[in-house]
Amino acid sequence: MDFRARRKKAVAAAQAVGVDALMVTHLPDVRYLTGFTGSNAAVVLFGGKSVLFTDGRYTAQAKAEVAGVRVVIEKKAAAVVACGWMEEAGVRRCGFDATQTSVAALESMRRAVSGSVRRGMFVPVGALVARLREVKDSDEIAAIRAAALVGCELFDGMLGFIQPGMAEVEVAAALEYAARLRGAEGMSFETIVASGERSALPHGRATTAKLPKRGFCTLDFGVVLDGYCSDMTRTVHLGKALPGEWEVYDSVLEAQTAAVARVAPGVTAGEVDEAARSVLRQSGLDKFFSHSTGHGVGLEIHEGPRLATQQTQVLEAGMVVTIEPGVYMPGKYGMRIEDMVLVTASGGEVLTPSLKAWIEL
Amino acid sequence: MDFRARRKKAVAAAQAVGVDALMVTHLPDVRYLTGFTGSNAAVVLFGGKSVLFTDGRYTAQAKAEVAGVRVVIEKKAAAVVACGWMEEAGVRRCGFDATQTSVAALESMRRAVSGSVRRGMFVPVGALVARLREVKDSDEIAAIRAAALVGCELFDGMLGFIQPGMAEVEVAAALEYAARLRGAEGMSFETIVASGERSALPHGRATTAKLPKRGFCTLDFGVVLDGYCSDMTRTVHLGKALPGEWEVYDSVLEAQTAAVARVAPGVTAGEVDEAARSVLRQSGLDKFFSHSTGHGVGLEIHEGPRLATQQTQVLEAGMVVTIEPGVYMPGKYGMRIEDMVLVTASGGEVLTPSLKAWIEL
Repeated sequence: MDFRARRKKAVAAAQAVGVDALMVTHLPDVRYLTGFTGSNAAVVLFGGKSVLFTDGRYTAQAKAEVAGVRVVIEKKAAAVVACGWMEEAGVRRCGFDATQTSVAALESMRRAVSGSVRRGMFVPVGALVARLREVKDSDEIAAIRAAALVGCELFDGMLGFIQPGMAEVEVAAALEYAARLRGAEGMSFETIVASGERSALPHGRATTAKLPKRGFCTLDFGVVLDGYCSDMTRTVHLGKALPGEWEVYDSVLEAQTAAVARVAPGVTAGEVDEAARSVLRQSGLDKFFSHSTGHGVGLEIHEGPRLATQQTQVLEAGMVVTIEPGVYMPGKYGMRIEDMVLVTASGGEVLTPSLKAWIEL
Repeated sequence: MDFRARRKKAVAAAQAVGVDALMVTHLPDVRYLTGFTGSNAAVVLFGGKSVLFTDGRYTAQAKAEVAGVRVVIEKKAAAVVACGWMEEAGVRRCGFDATQTSVAALESMRRAVSGSVRRGMFVPVGALVARLREVKDSDEIAAIRAAALVGCELFDGMLGFIQPGMAEVEVAAALEYAARLRGAEGMSFETIVASGERSALPHGRATTAKLPKRGFCTLDFGVVLDGYCSDMTRTVHLGKALPGEWEVYDSVLEAQTAAVARVAPGVTAGEVDEAARSVLRQSGLDKFFSHSTGHGVGLEIHEGPRLATQQTQVLEAGMVVTIEPGVYMPGKYGMRIEDMVLVTASGGEVLTPSLKAWIEL
């Protein structure tokens, strides 16, 4: 991973908004800029220098993970130590991310510098590093591709495992076990296994409910591999479909495919969302599609851009987004189909090529 | 769970600091006060009313989980909708948790009310609900006790599984699989399996490193069961100990036992920490004990109180804390022993009774 190039971009972005230093405390941003994966850190970029502040638990780890960055180990809160260092170094205007800094944290940062420099010292610059992270570099794309493929292998493996009468949590357990054996550090979110009537819950975490003899089962899961998240959803049907079920599935699949086909640089996030929504509108199913079409994925499971109604953000090559329309009919059933899609120079590349056609188990 | 009693306590705590309403957005606090487990919510307590704000994904779930609380479903950010409601309801001073509210979130809350009421409307009241959560009620103690016992069963099961040559992640995978089958929603943090030289890393997440023929292996893990976290650590030895290894283990065990014995209502957090640290000081090992002795556990894996040097917070009956001293010798080996301890009316009760004596596998 070319951390130096990322820090250079962050410095340029900070200069563009008129601050002379940038302070980063959101841990995925810290990892993005330095490679450090500890749970307590602040990074300051100032005057060509990069400094990472953390505590004694991470002395060895910081040494192993971080290069080209000075590491400062202190017992006190990393951000507070960083502020003291900045004052000494002559920082006048320090940009910070107001979406990731608590009111209390900002107050202790302010208290960590003397009154004479405090005025005008801390400048909210928005999610500047998170915005850089939306466009993935080649190392990141390779990492995400690997994570997405592990996801596909896991789903394919589940097809030979899932059976009526099995508890949803048994499915989740087997899937997560297989993920670990394939090298995943963990899951990127709590695994969703929503079967039967529970498939109508968009966020139906796996429970002890038994898979029905006849009905839908939605699997939505992701792994974390080398720090990068995958995210995919497939909905299978146990037993023979009842009248109408296949038609609804087919509409969702058509909506999903249309949105995937719409992904390209220059297209807005809202246009991709509308591509899915308009298909469902034709069959009157759009009222059961109660969430947005997708989101960016990377070091975090939910990143920008947000693919939702009327979002004007323009897709750029290198972004990785999910495309995940669904239909949920309370008290009956529901389904969702989700791929990860890389925005390429000319269109979109699906990173999760598992079967999306109707599957009857 | 007696959510009504908890809300009553929160209202009293809010009144005691001079606000007429309390706004809660930190999700574990939301769950604590209402039972709601969705990923987007704000709760307002005002004038005898409790209102939960969330979005359309959670209509069915909120209905199923929440009682005695009015539920408002809106597309906009929950906290923003809550602020509009508060203005209409005549709230003048709304307490919020500055440690859990970002600078940007506070700004949008301020913008959500009209200029005429904005001044003095939002009052930082600290982690008021989190402080209530430090003392567990009987339902919570039962839930934590159950989670802790699952942790013990998992460790006991691992004793017949762990073998030299096995990858650390295989151990983690097997443990997490077993956790799921025992009903865990997931793990309360990324499982630590740190073997051989890696045992000297206090936070050595499981890697593909193979367990050595001879050396320590530290397992630090926790499950989430019905929303409540467990947390325990045991260090076992593979093969015959080398000279000195047993002695170091024995000092850590003695330190851990001394700190557990010190737990009682009225004792300060710092005194418990010192009980462990002073034992290690006798053998000159305190310099290798690079972290604090423990922390509270409940809906979150890290809660108050913090058991660290010179912490003056006084333990109260109903608190659940970890006691987890360790010794880490960089480049050689390390070990940690951790129990969860409930503060009782007269002392402490260990909730994780798995064997702590020297184990050679």
